[in-house]
Amino acid sequence: MNTQREIRDFILHGYKHYVPHVSIDCAIFGYHERQLKVLLINIRSVNGLCLPGGYIKRTETLTQAAHRIVKERTGIQNLFLQQFKTFGDPGRALTRELDEKKFSAITGVKIGKKNWLIDQTISIGFYAITDFSKVNPQPDFMSDFCRWYDIHQLPGLLFDHNEMVREALHIMQLQLYHYPIGINLLPEKFTLTEIHALYETLLTKKLDIRNFPKKLIFLGIIKKLNEKVSIGPHRSPFLYKFDKAKYNKALKEGIPLH
Amino acid sequence: MNTQREIRDFILHGYKHYVPHVSIDCAIFGYHERQLKVLLINIRSVNGLCLPGGYIKRTETLTQAAHRIVKERTGIQNLFLQQFKTFGDPGRALTRELDEKKFSAITGVKIGKKNWLIDQTISIGFYAITDFSKVNPQPDFMSDFCRWYDIHQLPGLLFDHNEMVREALHIMQLQLYHYPIGINLLPEKFTLTEIHALYETLLTKKLDIRNFPKKLIFLGIIKKLNEKVSIGPHRSPFLYKFDKAKYNKALKEGIPLH
Repeated sequence: MNTQREIRDFILHGYKHYVPHVSIDCAIFGYHERQLKVLLINIRSVNGLCLPGGYIKRTETLTQAAHRIVKERTGIQNLFLQQFKTFGDPGRALTRELDEKKFSAITGVKIGKKNWLIDQTISIGFYAITDFSKVNPQPDFMSDFCRWYDIHQLPGLLFDHNEMVREALHIMQLQLYHYPIGINLLPEKFTLTEIHALYETLLTKKLDIRNFPKKLIFLGIIKKLNEKVSIGPHRSPFLYKFDKAKYNKALKEGIPLH
Repeated sequence: MNTQREIRDFILHGYKHYVPHVSIDCAIFGYHERQLKVLLINIRSVNGLCLPGGYIKRTETLTQAAHRIVKERTGIQNLFLQQFKTFGDPGRALTRELDEKKFSAITGVKIGKKNWLIDQTISIGFYAITDFSKVNPQPDFMSDFCRWYDIHQLPGLLFDHNEMVREALHIMQLQLYHYPIGINLLPEKFTLTEIHALYETLLTKKLDIRNFPKKLIFLGIIKKLNEKVSIGPHRSPFLYKFDKAKYNKALKEGIPLH
């Protein structure tokens, strides 16, 4: 949607092509060198921050819709988007923050009280994690900007999106021990210090460096290589890699990594 | 809904009180002595099996709706219902198996092609687990019966409900190590043999009895008591209990049990 005509058509007749009452919102986390961020967009004219989101085409699967929405709204492609929770408490809907007058002001399209976009909406949350130093998000026509925000200094977001970020973080932390979440955030071979920093940052807590490798090896997440790297005088730590065979087996068989 | 008038009103005007396009379906697992079952209902006149499901009132939270639906359709109360995944692939909807003619035949209410109940529907899945020997499910007016079926001999279900059961089982198996899922399925103090049988049944795989207790203690799930039980001549195994303090801490802080 880039022209006024397309937007008008979406607002007035979009329910024919999209499933009404259901949206998708995406919490895209970004990791780099001990920093954890989340991608937010600023909706034009409202001057409010929220997660990138949108509606589901009647011909799409939920995962296809999530990929299309992220691509359209931020320009980012090829994320591993994982559904984490659906949000539907009464009062969470668009109407709470954005009534029909404001909506008309933003879009230039006058809408009625019965327009499909301002009725109660249930939203399906997806999350993904990427290296924020490697992507350059771009806002779409509907947004002023699209930026990474530190997870520990998150501003107040529109709708129930602060709760969505908290829940996405919680589920990501649970899944960290079951899915290959860290695999694209570290080099193929890494030191214990590197994966320790990654896990501490994603779990947002301190982890005992002495027990940490034992735990990851016990859970079948990483394996120690018979190979060292020189990182300074008298400093040659062993290298490790993710145990992809175990990950793939777990993903295929649908069983936990234990 | 127990009278013809209530059903008619729901079919023709239900969208005013319920959120259209979104339903809830519940996979209720039952465990008892190494058996794992799932609760299915047989929809009246269609003669087809499916999970108990229904729509969300506009004033309810999703969890409130799930509890009400389970209570209305099966009579069961006080389950720990956990949202696990939302299903929305095109073609999964009611229309695939149940067109407007069949629907009119079942309910005695003639409906048009534009009726809200036969448009595309996205369904939010919840699961719960209970001891099937302790509950006596009762079907509602819309169903002929409501019965436990062995998870390993599941018949073909309506819609995408076979996939829902598989996914619910998968997520339950992942969460088994993070949430106190087994707590109501065993006595307060239990032997390793008892919890081993429970975990093998829920995970639907063999677990090495020698490593099993070490693993559960390592993950902070159970603790060994300084207490034995006599179960026969020369047989007095130690008793164990769930580590509720660790569970509660994990649930409260939203962090994994590690």
